[in-house]
Formats: sequence, structure tokens, C-alpha cells
Amino acid sequence: MKFTVAQIAHLLGGTVEGSGEQEVHTLGKIEEAGPGSISFLANPKYEAHLYTTRATAVIVSRELELKKGVHTSLIRVEDPYSSFTRLLEEYHRMLSFQKTGTEDPCFMHQSVSHGEGLYRGAFSYIGAGSKLGKGVKIYPNAYIGENVVIGDNTIILAGAKIYPDTKIGSNCTIHAGAVVGSDGFGFAPQPDGSYKTIPQLGNVVLEDWVSIGANAAIDCATMGSTIIRKGVKIDNLVQVAHNVEIGENTVIAAQSGVAGSTKIGRSCILAGQVGVIGHLQIADKTTIAAQAGVGKSIKQEGKVLIGSPAFERDDYLKSYVVFKNLPDLDKRLKQLEEKIINLRSPDEHS
Amino acid sequence: MKFTVAQIAHLLGGTVEGSGEQEVHTLGKIEEAGPGSISFLANPKYEAHLYTTRATAVIVSRELELKKGVHTSLIRVEDPYSSFTRLLEEYHRMLSFQKTGTEDPCFMHQSVSHGEGLYRGAFSYIGAGSKLGKGVKIYPNAYIGENVVIGDNTIILAGAKIYPDTKIGSNCTIHAGAVVGSDGFGFAPQPDGSYKTIPQLGNVVLEDWVSIGANAAIDCATMGSTIIRKGVKIDNLVQVAHNVEIGENTVIAAQSGVAGSTKIGRSCILAGQVGVIGHLQIADKTTIAAQAGVGKSIKQEGKVLIGSPAFERDDYLKSYVVFKNLPDLDKRLKQLEEKIINLRSPDEHS
Amino acid sequence: MKFTVAQIAHLLGGTVEGSGEQEVHTLGKIEEAGPGSISFLANPKYEAHLYTTRATAVIVSRELELKKGVHTSLIRVEDPYSSFTRLLEEYHRMLSFQKTGTEDPCFMHQSVSHGEGLYRGAFSYIGAGSKLGKGVKIYPNAYIGENVVIGDNTIILAGAKIYPDTKIGSNCTIHAGAVVGSDGFGFAPQPDGSYKTIPQLGNVVLEDWVSIGANAAIDCATMGSTIIRKGVKIDNLVQVAHNVEIGENTVIAAQSGVAGSTKIGRSCILAGQVGVIGHLQIADKTTIAAQAGVGKSIKQEGKVLIGSPAFERDDYLKSYVVFKNLPDLDKRLKQLEEKIINLRSPDEHS
Repeated sequence: MKFTVAQIAHLLGGTVEGSGEQEVHTLGKIEEAGPGSISFLANPKYEAHLYTTRATAVIVSRELELKKGVHTSLIRVEDPYSSFTRLLEEYHRMLSFQKTGTEDPCFMHQSVSHGEGLYRGAFSYIGAGSKLGKGVKIYPNAYIGENVVIGDNTIILAGAKIYPDTKIGSNCTIHAGAVVGSDGFGFAPQPDGSYKTIPQLGNVVLEDWVSIGANAAIDCATMGSTIIRKGVKIDNLVQVAHNVEIGENTVIAAQSGVAGSTKIGRSCILAGQVGVIGHLQIADKTTIAAQAGVGKSIKQEGKVLIGSPAFERDDYLKSYVVFKNLPDLDKRLKQLEEKIINLRSPDEHS
Repeated sequence: MKFTVAQIAHLLGGTVEGSGEQEVHTLGKIEEAGPGSISFLANPKYEAHLYTTRATAVIVSRELELKKGVHTSLIRVEDPYSSFTRLLEEYHRMLSFQKTGTEDPCFMHQSVSHGEGLYRGAFSYIGAGSKLGKGVKIYPNAYIGENVVIGDNTIILAGAKIYPDTKIGSNCTIHAGAVVGSDGFGFAPQPDGSYKTIPQLGNVVLEDWVSIGANAAIDCATMGSTIIRKGVKIDNLVQVAHNVEIGENTVIAAQSGVAGSTKIGRSCILAGQVGVIGHLQIADKTTIAAQAGVGKSIKQEGKVLIGSPAFERDDYLKSYVVFKNLPDLDKRLKQLEEKIINLRSPDEHS
Repeated sequence: MKFTVAQIAHLLGGTVEGSGEQEVHTLGKIEEAGPGSISFLANPKYEAHLYTTRATAVIVSRELELKKGVHTSLIRVEDPYSSFTRLLEEYHRMLSFQKTGTEDPCFMHQSVSHGEGLYRGAFSYIGAGSKLGKGVKIYPNAYIGENVVIGDNTIILAGAKIYPDTKIGSNCTIHAGAVVGSDGFGFAPQPDGSYKTIPQLGNVVLEDWVSIGANAAIDCATMGSTIIRKGVKIDNLVQVAHNVEIGENTVIAAQSGVAGSTKIGRSCILAGQVGVIGHLQIADKTTIAAQAGVGKSIKQEGKVLIGSPAFERDDYLKSYVVFKNLPDLDKRLKQLEEKIINLRSPDEHS
């Protein structure tokens, strides 16, 4: 796909400075972009690149005053960053809307119902009784078990696995290799030391606009549902255990894990490699810093936690400063102890 | 599948109070279950729900004395919790025994041997020389390499990958996306700073009743076998490196990792996100708390460890209490130092 | 494949002591190997096994002086360990070169170009416009998106997923279930608390001799490329975020994660479960110990870091020794405080 600079300016409601006839076909960073690319300048720190860039066109602010001549066309807009983001979205939309139809062989049980605009990649599997909305895209080697419901415009990338009875909303993205609905980790200890598997009969419910990262794993509930609310974004290799509930618009970064039956509030942020133990309640708007291990419920909103076990970030960092100096502190304590021994008590003086 | 309340009471050796003719088709929690569901009441704390539940039937203790009228049928048994668990198992068994036969296309080399009751999902792959027992179920998109041995009633879920030469016992479950037998991470440093791959020629042996979680990875041995003993339960996203041995009935929670050549004893518990470095021996019945990092062999049985590097849990928590107060402790030490300066030594007095 | 002892001796440039006619078909440890195996003795500590081993042949040093009779053939070489490693490599090479041709059904778009010696496993997918070098092996259920470039002799194991536009060098190995090129985790917060997906339009570039572990995830760049340089070895379940760059010959052990836009230098070692936050620069030859969390750029080469947040290992371990004694230190401080109260100040004496 190629567009002229003028066409893009039109799309963004901007004005062209320089040639509007040239064609661009890709996007790039201002310092790296070559001919045929369009880029943007939002941060004044990077202005120097504007005078040397090889990009065909650059999106800049209406306010920008040039300090030298440029070799590129300019598209002047109100807010270069958001204009560029919009361009990215359009580009992405055009790319992802290319996929429709069926690549053979693929498997779809005759009882499956689906809306228009379905894409089924080769070797994708859709089990009996599943219901797919409009514009759903199932990439190659993806597996959709029995009685799965998938809403409009949801994309299931290559090799993702959706267990039977999962419910997925609309506009969700399940990245490659993610597993949704695997059995919760439930085993009942027996008198002989062995464990008996507790059947996991519940399911997973993903509401609308949920994103699940590559190779993440979301377990089904023992009974009832593991629930991922609207707008939740989950990164790669994250573990969500059985009967967990994640509140609306919460973001969970890579390799974090949430243990069974814990409820995470709305608009929380879990940074990378965080662990939250089971059966807790985490208040809305809690931020949990990278590698923290949360071992207690958080009742007050808006806290920032770190450490393992985690407590408030500012307190942790103050303690950590002293931790780094512990050998010195220990030495000072020993010196004091020696000094005290050399001091006689008042009684001894009298 | 539907059953009458009377049929279920018969299965559990219980007695019906109320209508035995009604049908139930699903299971649910007493506070959430709707018509057509069966639930249970084990914890007296939840008794209030018994008088308001919409479940068609509830399993209760023979001893329970009703305080009000109920709108549900009761099935009275000795132990409601274990009766309900038994029901879960039966239900699960019926569901999982549904799958037999072959979905086309799938791939099985002509040299493969297998017992009766095999299920092969579409796009599953079974390599040359592999031997499968009775009742084995290979879900869609699963890959079984060459010369793999799989015992009776083992289930390989969607998209799991079993490398060549792996040996899997009977009654095992390998969840979706798990990889068993991948190359160990072995590289020999070269004089020029690069690394040469050390071929990994061993295999993985899973004994009977082993469970491997979704997207977990179990590496093969460099030579010999990585061994997961009978009854071991491994959760999602766990890493087990080459030449590791995990003792009988040990349980490893999500996102934990065990580095190369370490031997974990029997009946150990590794909580989530635990790390154990290589070439260690961990005694039987060791418990390792979440996020702990074990850097030394554990010789005595029954220890509980936490921290990174890990030491005994009670000691760690005592230290951690002081850690939280370190800024205060530091201040107190400074105050003492100042006081001491203001105190003259006895010699100065005389 | 079977070889005579004499054939192997010839391959290694060694000399046979005992029968050269016997056949071996596998490799094993000296203490475990049975008839038909070849083993080696490099460490004098294990010499006792030489006199009892059931291996058909053992590779030993030219210098070794036997203390008793042996029941096995010997192959005498300069350096038994490196000879055995060479044998491992040959064995591995022979095994992996067995795979060529096409197993049906598999999917390859008509626009794909490839060199000779291609292996395509059943249910593998190769998207439009992709270009594959010589001797490339695509295992069953692997997915190669559109416009992917793969160099000579690279192996893509079962069920690995390579997103569109990825570039992979020659002699790389991508293990089962690994995902290369998944969308970076980029979301722009909106005024209503929801997040809007920032399209990820870049790609991943793997240079030559790169290894990616089972179920690892390497995200594509937002724009430009996530770059994994020549000779980098990445273990299982590792997360590499968007726009990261990993320098030549760096090794990253299992379950580590590197957040967005961080640049890791050359010849670094990241042990298991390490986390590195985003937008950092890590100097060449940095070693990061297991479970460390790196929160600041490292400017000086050759440092060894540990802790979360990480600092220099020796300092950390000294602090950690005191940490373990904190309850005692706290008690000592209290005792001092009490003593000081009992001491009157000099003024009080006068």
C-alpha cells in the first residue's frame, strides 16, 4: 500500500509544506527512516534529526519554527504524536483486515456458527458447538475447543489454545501460544502422600477489549469462572490461576503471576515478574512494582508496593538504603558496644 | 448429560429429602447456583445460603438440622465435601471419556503402535516408532516426536509438544502448550567469546500420575534422563532444566524454575516463582515459599525456606520485621553515637 | 545407526586398545552405560568405573595407565572430553540431518522461495512471501508468518510461531513453542481509564547462531526492530520485550525478562529469573545473578550484580549476612540504649 504525502495530510487534517506528490509506504523513526518512509517529531530534543532525516515526510507541530532548511516534506498538525499514533492505527487496521477466508486444511465442526468476515488459517481447529461473532480471525494452528463463544472482531493468533466452554468478548486479542482455560492447579492430598486431582469444571470469561500475551496461561475456575474484566491487558508469559478475577482496565506486565481465588481491583498496574498469593483482595488503582511479592490483601486504593513480601514502596526504598549500608551499621554498633564497656556506670564512679 | 436427584443420591449412597425426580445437569456454588444445578453445604458458615439457594439440589450432612424451610431438594450424606468431590470426579470422567476416534486430517506414522480407545485430534502428529497405551488421548495440534512411549490413559492436550525419545507413564496429563524434552541449555564457551552448542542427547522420563501445566518446559538430559517421579504435579509455566530429578509426590507451583542437575526430594512443595540453582540436593519434604531463591543444598528434611538467597522461613520473617524498621534503627544508632560523644570516659572524670 | 569401535577411533584420530570390531549405537555415562554404548573417562575421579563399566568402548587419555584389567575396548585420544563432545556433535548432526522432504498435509504459500534440503513437517505453515535458505527444517505444527526470512540450516522446532516480517539468520535454533515477533506490550492510557492499543509495526531480527528456548517470547518493535545479535543464547520461558537489543554472545537463562527498549551489551550473562526494567543500557560482560532485578543502567563493564533492586554482588552478600542477624542487631541496639540511660552524663556527675 502506498499513499501520497497529501493523502496522509488529508487523513490527519494537516497541511503539507513541500511536495505532496511523493509516495510513502512505511513508517519509521526520524533518525533511522529512509526514502519512502513517513516519520514524526514530537519531542523537541530530537529536532536536530529533522534537518538530516532521509524520511520522505515528517509530521510536525503547527507551532514548530524551522531553524534551517529541510530535505523532507512536512505535514503540520496540532499534535504530532497523536497524529502519528492515528496513522499507526490506520496502517495496522488495513493490514489486519486483509485476512479473511479459509486456508485448507482446517477443521470446523459442523455445529459451529459464525458471523461474516471469518478468517480460518490452515490447521486451525474449532470444536463442536462454538459460536463466533463477525470478523473473527483464527490464525493457523490455533485451537478452539468445544462450546467456546467468541465476540466480534476478536483475533486468535497462531497456535493459541482456547479450552472448551471459554467465553471471549469482542475486540479481544489472544497472542500466539497463549492458553486460556487450562485446568486449575488443584490437588487433594491423600493419606499415602499422593495427590488426587480435583476436577476443574469451571471456565474462563474474558470480557471485551481484553489482550492476552504470547504464551500466557489463564486457568479455568474449579467451579464458576475465572474472570478477566473489560479492557484488561495481560502481557507475555503471565500466569492467572483458577477463580481469579481481574478488574476493569488493569494491566499486568510480563511473567507476573496471580494465585488462585485472588481478586485484583480495577485500574491496577502489576509490573513485570510480580507474584500475588491466593485468596487476596487487591484494592483498585494499586500499583505493584516489578518482582514484588504480595502476601496480604490491600484494602486502601492507590498504594504503590514493592519488596517480597511487599509493603509500601517509599518505605521499602528507605529500608533498602540502610540495607545496603548494613555492614557499616553493624561495625558502628560494635564500636559503640566497645565504647560503652570502657565507660563505667555512674555507680562505679561514686 | 442430565441426572435426576435420586440417581445422584444413589451414586453417593445418600438419601433424598424433597423431590428426587427433578433433573440436574451442572454443578455450582450454593450462593450462585441456579435451577438445574446441584451444590453442597460443607462449611456451617454458609448455612444461610441453604435457605435462599436457587439450586435444584444441595448435598448436606446427615446431621444437619434445618432452621427454616428450604426450596431445594436435599441429598443427605456422611461427608458433603467428599461426596461433592466424588461427583466432580464422575462428571469429569464422563466428559473426558467422550473423546475417542480420529479427526481428519491428522498424522500418525505407520510404525506407531497403540492400544484401544485412542483419540487423535485434527492436526495432531505422532512420529515414527512411538508406542501408545490404551485410552490415550492426543488433542488437536499436539506433537509427539519419534520413539515416544506413552502409558495407558494419558492425555496430551492441545498443542503440547513431546520431543523424540520421551517416556511418559500412565494416567499423566500434559496440558496445552507444554513442551517436554526440549534441548537442555548447554553451551561451551569458545576462546573467541562465542558459544558452541553441547548436543543434548538424553531424554525426559515422566513416571505415572504426573501432571505438567500449560506452557511449562521440561528439558531433556544432556545424557541419560531428566526424571519426574510418580505423582509429581507441575503447574503452568514451570521450567525444569536438563538432568533434573523431581522426587515422588512433589508439587511445583506456577513459574518456578529448577536449574540443571538438581535433585529435588519426595513430597516437597515449591510455591510460585521459586528458583533453585543447579547441582543441588533438596531433602524430602522441604517447603520453599513463593519467590524464594535456593542457592544451597538442603540436607535436613521438613525445612521451610524463604528469601533470596533462601534460609529458614521463621528466621527470615524475623529479619524482615527489622528490615522494615531499618530507617528507625539507623536513626537510633546515630542518636546513641551522639550521646556517647557527650559522655566522657571514666578516665576523663578522674 | 551403528558404528564399529574402529570407525569411531578413526573419526577421532585415536587408537584402539582391545576389539575394534564391536558395534556401538548409543552414548552414555561410564557408570550407567550398557552394552552397545560408548562412554568416556576425562576426570580421574571416575577412574574406578573404568574397571567395572558395561560400556562396549570408552574414550580415554593416551596418558592413562591402567591399574587393572578392563572389560571394555579403549579408544585412546589426546583429550577424551573434547573427543567425546565431538562425537556428540557428529551424532547430533547425523540425527538432525535425517529430516528432509515434506510430510502431508502442510501449508506453503506458492510465493515462498527456499533452498535445497528443506524439511516441512505435517501441519507446518509457511506464509506468503517468506524466503527460506538451504537446509532449513520446519517441524510439525510450526507457524511461519508472511514475509519471514530464514537463513541456511536454521531449525524451527514443533509448534514454534514466527510472526510476519521476522528475519532469522543462519544456523539458528528456535525451540518448540517459542514465539518470535509477538506484539510489544504498548497501550496508551485514555481519559476514561481504558487503554488504547499502540500498534506494533516493527519486527524481530535474529542474527546468525542464535538459540531461542522452548516457550520463550520475543516481541517485535513498535517501530524498527527488536534485535538479537549473533551468537546469543536464550533459554526457555524468557521474555524479551519490544525494541530490546541483546549484544553478541550474551546468554540469558530461563525465565528471565528484559523490558522494553533496554540494550544489553555483548558477552553478558543473565542467570535465571532475572528482571531488567525498560530503557536501560547494560555494559558488556555484565553478569546478573539469579532473581536479580536491575533498575539502573550499568556503565562499567564486568560487574556482577545481585538483589532487587540489584547492586554489586559482594556488597549485597555482605549486607545479606547482616540481614540474617538483624533480630540480634536490633536486640544489641536496645541493650545499648538501656545502658546509656543508666549512664549519667559527665555534667550530672559534676
